[in-house]
Amino acid sequence: MNAGFAAIAAKCRTSFERQGLMTHIGARMVRLEPGECDLECGFQAALSQQNGFFHAGATSSLADSAAGYAALSVFEPEADILTIEFKINLLAPAKGDRLSACGRVRRAGRTVAVSAADVWALEGDRRTLVATGLFTLMKIFA
Amino acid sequence: MNAGFAAIAAKCRTSFERQGLMTHIGARMVRLEPGECDLECGFQAALSQQNGFFHAGATSSLADSAAGYAALSVFEPEADILTIEFKINLLAPAKGDRLSACGRVRRAGRTVAVSAADVWALEGDRRTLVATGLFTLMKIFA
Amino acid sequence: MNAGFAAIAAKCRTSFERQGLMTHIGARMVRLEPGECDLECGFQAALSQQNGFFHAGATSSLADSAAGYAALSVFEPEADILTIEFKINLLAPAKGDRLSACGRVRRAGRTVAVSAADVWALEGDRRTLVATGLFTLMKIFA
Amino acid sequence: MNAGFAAIAAKCRTSFERQGLMTHIGARMVRLEPGECDLECGFQAALSQQNGFFHAGATSSLADSAAGYAALSVFEPEADILTIEFKINLLAPAKGDRLSACGRVRRAGRTVAVSAADVWALEGDRRTLVATGLFTLMKIFA
Repeated sequence: MNAGFAAIAAKCRTSFERQGLMTHIGARMVRLEPGECDLECGFQAALSQQNGFFHAGATSSLADSAAGYAALSVFEPEADILTIEFKINLLAPAKGDRLSACGRVRRAGRTVAVSAADVWALEGDRRTLVATGLFTLMKIFA
Repeated sequence: MNAGFAAIAAKCRTSFERQGLMTHIGARMVRLEPGECDLECGFQAALSQQNGFFHAGATSSLADSAAGYAALSVFEPEADILTIEFKINLLAPAKGDRLSACGRVRRAGRTVAVSAADVWALEGDRRTLVATGLFTLMKIFA
Repeated sequence: MNAGFAAIAAKCRTSFERQGLMTHIGARMVRLEPGECDLECGFQAALSQQNGFFHAGATSSLADSAAGYAALSVFEPEADILTIEFKINLLAPAKGDRLSACGRVRRAGRTVAVSAADVWALEGDRRTLVATGLFTLMKIFA
Repeated sequence: MNAGFAAIAAKCRTSFERQGLMTHIGARMVRLEPGECDLECGFQAALSQQNGFFHAGATSSLADSAAGYAALSVFEPEADILTIEFKINLLAPAKGDRLSACGRVRRAGRTVAVSAADVWALEGDRRTLVATGLFTLMKIFA
């Protein structure tokens, strides 16, 4: 990891830790490389829908953050980020011990970036693709 | 409210109360009519993103549930529901005391329904449209 | 219509006429007001899918243009527009003599606007809602 | 290619040829394998937007068909298909001699399949990713 990216990675991690929702759902940033970010969170009743699986909202929140930090990792050091829209397909019931969301940049322009994110439910050794989404992120300068 | 809808409304409220995520974020179902559902939740740090506004994940979770219960309210009494996909545009920073999500059915078919949801941030007397989304819901029978 | 809007309306109509695809499918701009645009096109075999209805691509092209001109009508006179993304739900088979797409702005920001569009299939006196979509448009300056 | 897939491939090609819109834009099916479909079409003024690039509607129509035939190729031989919704990000101006859309199935369930499609603009030797989308397809039986 070069010095330039080390500073950006530190910015991403600090930003992530300031996200009350991510802290609250117990999400951890498990990997961050230029243009890619993996997040994980464990199951808890507080994240469930009516049948005891992860709520679509939990799945999409995790995906949104993974997609966003993937993009933030390729922005200028002083830039911040806003999700302007996203779409997510929930492919299978999100049943498992934990969720893993993998975000990666598909295109980074001057003001807008587009990331994709896949979310997997992990149960012991088994993993199931439970969601895939596309996210449009805007670069902002405070 | 006719007898038939009273039973469906009771089913929707019971289902809503079983959603750990909705309970957890303090969401309340403030209105339910055939094809329409309004939900509200107050701000708490646990729902924030890195700048102290509501996280896109909180906004979209509330919207998803409002859209889903709007659809469930027009399904057969014995049907349950799954979100198969949604798209949401985050129109303005979700800054306020609380969020209000209004879901309404646009079309209910035999197996699939489509709902729209708008989300407003409320701060004292002021309300701002902060998100709008489209949700595809599938009817399921246990 | 005030003088300012007359100039913008002329710009929108000129731009619309330069869209080879819109000309080609026989689309006409039937209404343009600040933030709203209605387009129509008649059925022809060249717009069909495998069962003889309007192809989803025709429906979504018309919706995209209606959404875009609704937004362009509230931009500065010198601005042009690009669709950066859209999502559309195809609600019913698009069977009819013609299609009518109604675009309206939901939010216009400094650089990005969001429009909704509904598309109706018209057959004699009957109209059916066949699609609804959300479009994110970016303001550009040549 | 096994006998089973040969029959399905023939069904896909016949269906594709019945799509007036695809014929009309000069689209060709250049590859079809189980769960994957590539389509191409050349530039013509009839497919342009106001600046002379491919119109978003042309790009998304081609993407929709590629995504749909990718899914149809894994359905039962007697099934037909309807796009129920899609979302597409237009990543760069679609400027080039021709477009190439690559659709692939992400998940095929009992009644619903989800495909992704990427679209490239080709100009001589250069190719540019101009769009990426997610498509929800429904299996139907006549």
